[in-house]
This record gives sequence, C-alpha cells and structure tokens, in this order.
Amino acid sequence: MLLSAELHENGVRLLDQRKLPLSKEFVECQYYHEVGEAIRTLTVRGAPAIGIAAAYGLVLAARAARKMDRPAFDREMYAAADELRGTRPTAVNLFWAINRMMRVLDENPKQPVNEMVALLEREARAIFTEDVEMNKRIGHYGRDLVKDGARILTHCNAGAIATGGYGTALGIIRAAAEQGKQVSVWVDETRPLLQGARLTAWELMEDGIPVTLITDNMAGHFMQRGMVDIVLLGADRITANGDVANKIGTYSVAVLAKEHGIPFYVVAPTSTIDMSIDHGREIVIEERNPDEVTSFSGVRTAPEGVKVANPAFDVTPHRYITGIITDNGVVYPPFDVNLKRLKVMINARPEIRPE
Amino acid sequence: MLLSAELHENGVRLLDQRKLPLSKEFVECQYYHEVGEAIRTLTVRGAPAIGIAAAYGLVLAARAARKMDRPAFDREMYAAADELRGTRPTAVNLFWAINRMMRVLDENPKQPVNEMVALLEREARAIFTEDVEMNKRIGHYGRDLVKDGARILTHCNAGAIATGGYGTALGIIRAAAEQGKQVSVWVDETRPLLQGARLTAWELMEDGIPVTLITDNMAGHFMQRGMVDIVLLGADRITANGDVANKIGTYSVAVLAKEHGIPFYVVAPTSTIDMSIDHGREIVIEERNPDEVTSFSGVRTAPEGVKVANPAFDVTPHRYITGIITDNGVVYPPFDVNLKRLKVMINARPEIRPE
Repeated sequence: MLLSAELHENGVRLLDQRKLPLSKEFVECQYYHEVGEAIRTLTVRGAPAIGIAAAYGLVLAARAARKMDRPAFDREMYAAADELRGTRPTAVNLFWAINRMMRVLDENPKQPVNEMVALLEREARAIFTEDVEMNKRIGHYGRDLVKDGARILTHCNAGAIATGGYGTALGIIRAAAEQGKQVSVWVDETRPLLQGARLTAWELMEDGIPVTLITDNMAGHFMQRGMVDIVLLGADRITANGDVANKIGTYSVAVLAKEHGIPFYVVAPTSTIDMSIDHGREIVIEERNPDEVTSFSGVRTAPEGVKVANPAFDVTPHRYITGIITDNGVVYPPFDVNLKRLKVMINARPEIRPE
Repeated sequence: MLLSAELHENGVRLLDQRKLPLSKEFVECQYYHEVGEAIRTLTVRGAPAIGIAAAYGLVLAARAARKMDRPAFDREMYAAADELRGTRPTAVNLFWAINRMMRVLDENPKQPVNEMVALLEREARAIFTEDVEMNKRIGHYGRDLVKDGARILTHCNAGAIATGGYGTALGIIRAAAEQGKQVSVWVDETRPLLQGARLTAWELMEDGIPVTLITDNMAGHFMQRGMVDIVLLGADRITANGDVANKIGTYSVAVLAKEHGIPFYVVAPTSTIDMSIDHGREIVIEERNPDEVTSFSGVRTAPEGVKVANPAFDVTPHRYITGIITDNGVVYPPFDVNLKRLKVMINARPEIRPE
C-alpha cells in the first residue's frame, strides 16, 4: 500500500501528492519544519493525512531535542506545535492530532526526555494505526448505504492517500466493492488542483473500480439525467450543528443533490467533528495562491494581472446533508442533538490506548 | 475591434480563440472546408460567431464555384451547406445562418452565377452587421436590469468574440458600464476549455471592467455569501418552451441561483430561439474529445486510460430562468406563450433587408 506519510528511523517520508498520478515521488523530511512546509504546499494533503504528518513532524521535533533538559525540550515541542498548527487553517484533524500529541507531553511532566521521545513516537504511530482502523469501521458502517449497481458521485479525494490508508469516502466505495456490489463512480476533477482527476480517479482505477472523470460543472447535468444515485465525500471540519467545511465545490454538489433528491453523505472520522464551533459560519476558510487558478500544470491560462479568488474550502449547511458517516456509526439529523450524543457516547467508552 | 471572423477579398480571417489571451493569432481560410474545420476545432466559437463564420464559409464556396453553370453552382452550395451544418450540432445560430444564406439561393433561381456570388456575399455581410446591431439592442434592453454596483456572475464567453462584436451577455455588461454604472463581474473559468478564464476575463479587462476569476465550483460559495446580485449568460439554443442549451455548467449555475434567489437571465439574439423544438430534452448535446478534460496545453493531468464524459452543453429548464434578454426585448415567463408572441411580432414587422 502506498502511504501518504511514513515515520522511519531517520525521518518522515511523504508521498508527493502533487506529482501523482504521472510519477510516484517521495519527499524525505529530517526536520519538522520540512513537514510543515510539505503540509503548506500540499505535498501531503487530506484532512486525516495531514494530522498524521503533523504528529510525525512532532516526533522529528522530539528526536532533535532529545539531548536537551526537560524544560528546554518542552519549549521546543511547544514551538514545533505552534509552527505546525499554522500551516493550514481549515482542517480540524491537524489541530486534533497536534493536541493529542501535546497532551502526552502535559500528562507526563516528570518523565525524562528520552522516555518522552518514545512516548510521543508511540502516540504518533497510534494516530496512524487508529486512522486506518477508523477508515475500516467507516467502510463497514457506510457500505450498507450503497446499493448494488449504485452510481456514486465524489468530489476531491477522500481516499487512502488522504488518510492513514483505505480512505473515508473511498473506503466506503472499496468496502461496497469488496462485498461484491457492482458500483461505479463519477469523479469530479476538483479544480483548481485536480485532486479528483489526479488522485481519486487513479486510486479507484488501481482497485479496478469503474470511474468516469468529469469536470466539476458537469455533476448537475448527470444528476438531471438521473445518472447519479448517491453522493459520498469527505470533510475537513464538521461543526456542532452538522455544518461541513470541505473542498471548494462541495456546497454546489450538495445544492444540486438536494435539487435532484439524491442522498448526500459526508464521510469522516469522529476527530473531524469540532464541538467547539457551533456553526459553519465561524470556520476560517483558507485562501490560497491565485496561481493555482490562473495556470494549469505550470501552463498559464488566464490573462496576466487578472484578479482571482481562491478559497480552498466552502461550507455546506447541515440542512443539505442526509447523514454523516463516521467510525462510530451514521449520524442523521437533527445533527446538533445527534452529534452531541455521539460525542457523549465516545467519551463514556473506556479509552483504548496503545500499551 | 478584434473580430472573430472577417471576410476579405482572398478569404476568411478567423481569430484563433484557442490561443487567446496569451497570443493573438489568426487563421486564414481560402476554402469553406477550412472554415468548417475551424468551427469544429473551436478556432472560432460562440453561437453567433459560428453562424457568421459559416455564412462566410458559404461565400468562399460560392466564389470557388463562380465559373460553373447555375445547376452545378447550386449543387456545390448545397454540398457546402451540408458540410458546414455537420460541424457542430448544438448551437442553432449555425443552422439559422446557413438556412438564411441558402434562402437567397432558393429565392433567386434565375439569377446568373456571378450575380449570386454578389448576393450571397451581401447576405453574409448583412448577417454580420445585423449581429452587431442586435447585440447593441440587447445591451440597450438588458442594461436596465443591471443595478449600479451590481456584482454580476457569468459563465463561458458571451462576448464580442463570441458574436459579430460587442457581445450578448458581455454586451449588457458593457452597456451598463457605458451608462456609468459601477459593475463588477465574477467570471467562471468554464472548464474544460477555459473560455471564461481565457476570453471573458481578457475581454472585460481590456474594457477596464473589474473582474474576479473563479473556478466553476466556487460560484455557489460566493452566492451563499451574498456576493452575487445577478447572473447573465449566453445561449446556444432556446426551445419553444424556454429551455436553454448553453455551455456545460450553465445548469448548475441556474440551480444555485434559484437556491439563493438570484435573478438568472439568459441573453441571446432572437435567432437563437428554435421554435421547431418544443422541449430542451430534444436538443442534441455534442460530446467532445476526452482529451479536453484529461490534459491541458498538452500537459496530461489525469491517469492514462481513464474514462471521461465530456458533454459540451447542458440544458437549463425554463423554470430556472428569470428572463430571456433578446434584441427584441426581454421575454418573461410563461415562456411558451411569450416566445410565441415574440416570434409573431417579429414576423409581422416589415422585413428590413440590406439594399
């Protein structure tokens, strides 16, 4: 399996997702700054994957500070956490993973530094392992919503390389295919960076699942013609009321799905749910470089000097969402009530931590 | 003014719209086959512009046959008309312009060939001249619908180079700006061939009208944020019930506009209305080459062998349309009744023909 991020003895190896599918290249990081830069430049992307990469980045920070005394070590770790938090503003998994790592620091104030390095490494590996397990559970819960013969539409890439492995939305498609269901997938190319064309189409083709690539503005046309049965896509942040921030274009797909009576499911691990924010309006939307819109694979396609807007995400209000498929089951409206119940249920459960 | 098509003594000069805005190149055609090929390959595009180009193509056919006797000349003309009709299936202006040229042939069965060449050339030039006048009238009728400060969204290119000159949707924007209104325009880039990014953004910038270029999947986001006041876009064919075939993505914009209560106007010369077709379902939608979706400027962006759908147009049912702005005034619902009235009114009017 091609991993988006891998922690090894000498550093972190990141799959360069910008180069896919034309070439499979890797970026080796020895310092956490390099991991931060890779997150910022989308070398590694996908909400769960950048959480894992950030956790690995903190391991690199810990290893680099292993000769320091504990107060200096802690200062280094806090600086690294701050820097990594600043790389991308929208996906909550990034903050979730960093906070989880820093909790290990806070909960073990007396441990010597070399012990801390080992504990942090164990936590980072657990974040990765649990993510793959979560995706399998998501697949298990979601596959029953996919009927035999279903023509699924997806946007962006919520696949194996957007996560620890297996994928969230694509994990469900894989799980349905593994059940022997004949499914096919409409893949939105997902401008500006073409994650659908480059990553999702490629992932599904590797698994032998039939795909049809379309430009984003074609989704409505095929819905109108009755050729889309269900929408499955990922999320970068879900607020307490069920609003969803995800890749730009998600909201348009949601409006179109509602107009055509097509079920619209958001697929994400529970860590994507941010109960600290009540409403999608409050989510910070990352504005990215205009060059992403004005050029195409390095070829300029728009007039010099043209003004561009390039929000990386949009917010889909909860009223457009049929259900949110998580690793703890499918959540249906009313989302404000049911997401709270889900979180209570999870917190009540005995915590499973790696030994 | 940069003309999309120009008839001169030795041939037809077409602006190569595929090369804009990075370079301004022209294609010189000496034979009508070359004009047909230019229409097929989108060297010239835009529903009214391809009508004009086809009329010019028929002039080239007539000139090439000027030494023949009248029956042979007519056979040549019918063959040329058939070939040009086969270049693109969706835009009705193409058929309208060809039929108008062929009517000159039919209505003058006794004229000698050299007279016919002159008559056909006069008709082709009239189609061009009238198109520019129509666009000015469209601008006149449409500008009052655009408020001072309006933030307009448009899709594809319904501009000067899509027509004889001035433009339909962009003509209205120009007319509003000429009135001194402060307008600004959201330009959908319009995948796959980026007519918005390459042509519309460039045209408006040349006129000093503020534009913001966005990818197609961002339109919904800015509508949600209350940043779009009106949608103005062109049409390739309008059926008797008011359904509109236009560039792929138009339907999605229409659904989004309706969802946000934003007025959605289709702008087109009356020749775009095809009363011979009752319903948008019956319009033939051109399916274009998959390469348009999987690569850009020769750079491949999707996996080899991926299946692609590439409809060039979609159909927007009339219920999404606020009004159709024509050179004979604005038509409002019920469109089936009011389009019929419009056609009756036009047919009752004394025909103005060039001397």
